[in-house]
Amino acid sequence: MKLLRYGPVGAEKPGILDEVGKIRDLSGVVDDISGVVLGDEGLARLRDLDLGALPVVDGDPRIGACVGNVGKFVCIGLNYADHAAESGLDLPAEPVVFFKATSAIMGPNDTVEIPRGSVKTDWEVELGVVIGKHTKYVSEAKALDHVAGYCVVNDLSERDFQLHRSGQWVKGKSADTFGPIGPWLVTRDEIADPQNLPMYLEVNGHRFQNGSTSTMHFSVATVISHLSQFMSLQPGDVISTGTPPGVGMGQNPQVYLKPGDRMELGIDGLGAQRQNVVQG
Amino acid sequence: MKLLRYGPVGAEKPGILDEVGKIRDLSGVVDDISGVVLGDEGLARLRDLDLGALPVVDGDPRIGACVGNVGKFVCIGLNYADHAAESGLDLPAEPVVFFKATSAIMGPNDTVEIPRGSVKTDWEVELGVVIGKHTKYVSEAKALDHVAGYCVVNDLSERDFQLHRSGQWVKGKSADTFGPIGPWLVTRDEIADPQNLPMYLEVNGHRFQNGSTSTMHFSVATVISHLSQFMSLQPGDVISTGTPPGVGMGQNPQVYLKPGDRMELGIDGLGAQRQNVVQG
Repeated sequence: MKLLRYGPVGAEKPGILDEVGKIRDLSGVVDDISGVVLGDEGLARLRDLDLGALPVVDGDPRIGACVGNVGKFVCIGLNYADHAAESGLDLPAEPVVFFKATSAIMGPNDTVEIPRGSVKTDWEVELGVVIGKHTKYVSEAKALDHVAGYCVVNDLSERDFQLHRSGQWVKGKSADTFGPIGPWLVTRDEIADPQNLPMYLEVNGHRFQNGSTSTMHFSVATVISHLSQFMSLQPGDVISTGTPPGVGMGQNPQVYLKPGDRMELGIDGLGAQRQNVVQG
Repeated sequence: MKLLRYGPVGAEKPGILDEVGKIRDLSGVVDDISGVVLGDEGLARLRDLDLGALPVVDGDPRIGACVGNVGKFVCIGLNYADHAAESGLDLPAEPVVFFKATSAIMGPNDTVEIPRGSVKTDWEVELGVVIGKHTKYVSEAKALDHVAGYCVVNDLSERDFQLHRSGQWVKGKSADTFGPIGPWLVTRDEIADPQNLPMYLEVNGHRFQNGSTSTMHFSVATVISHLSQFMSLQPGDVISTGTPPGVGMGQNPQVYLKPGDRMELGIDGLGAQRQNVVQG
């Protein structure tokens, strides 16, 4: 299933994509794409629906973040060997974990705002993992059973804020609009192998990132199991699993986003995002 | 006003302390101590209530975290000069910011669980600041207008997870039970000067921390203004503003929590917390 949220900011309704790509309204069935809806029972209930009997959503509504009420927005740093190299950093011995502010989350095609004082706003296409059930001290073997589904994330980053403003990366990762999520939450049954998904990111039509989750250093299962040793995860938590090479900081000379730029990014089977860039 | 939440975990009701220290039930007035209730209008509405007309809560209910639905749990590191010194770290040029997982939040007197594999679980009494209104690019002069109130926070920390598990402090700050908040949210009108609040923390009756917010390096106003340059803050966000000297890591030899220990900590005017420690 491809689950989504559509409508104005802060008033998104739940929806589902039908077999011809039309949005069907789920608001008569569930309140939101969040919480218990993401568990095995919740998803099974949606899977049993006759999509043809659900109202078609007319027009071309705004698409919101594909998950509502995200409790934690967890990110993994330096999780692709080539990206660590382009960042001038060693590949870590175990997953590097940081949080983005949940207030950074927005829809996949909303406008990205360059924060005041920024000169190094950068992009990162990433595989997002949406947690479906309570997760604590889970083994790698069972970790993927805790996944509701997958989505595209653009882990926008201000490199100067991240690296040169008194330590800890959070300052460069948390600006409003720095977390486009979606367009869809694709349930895990539709993703045969999360470690074999081609992904890309283009700025103004130039392809900067062209990778695959096959070169991920710590797998999705390893990341979930590892995280669950340090904190519990709840339904609706989103884990962004790191980015392949090709970020702006890794170019020679470095390239950063400027007002008027347009990004397009996507992952096979998970859809695409398109963001215009403005000065915040 | 001293606002609080009482009742079983996950089913807390809003309450308010009356002039003789009894809990009065607010659930006929507001749904929770969270969100818009924390804004100036929301608090003014509570201030106008006749407390004597509200139902008294009988018995000795569990006290929950004093804020519900916390969106971000932001922490400031190394914000007291003497604590930076005891940690062997330089005082930062600007506030060091990190997040704790919101899933770490619990009531002030709930049981602290030492995570599996931990040998260095430590304490940190801190002044917590509860945000009352949307905050973005706010000046220091206006920053305190955005505060709903203050509370006690114990910023529990696993030092080995924090410092030696592949960078970024989040792994040592986010375990379940690592964020007791409360007992009360004391509204800002009752705190004449947030930079002059004596605070303490004892373990098994031995006073390890004995400080005051008067020695804070970056003031509450500076911290809020600074944060708001990097992310927006929402009503119900909690900022924990750093700890004075006396953490376990700073002792010689170092002292860490073990099952059976009992902590007591408090800040003048904001109440006290008491936590028993068990193995998680």
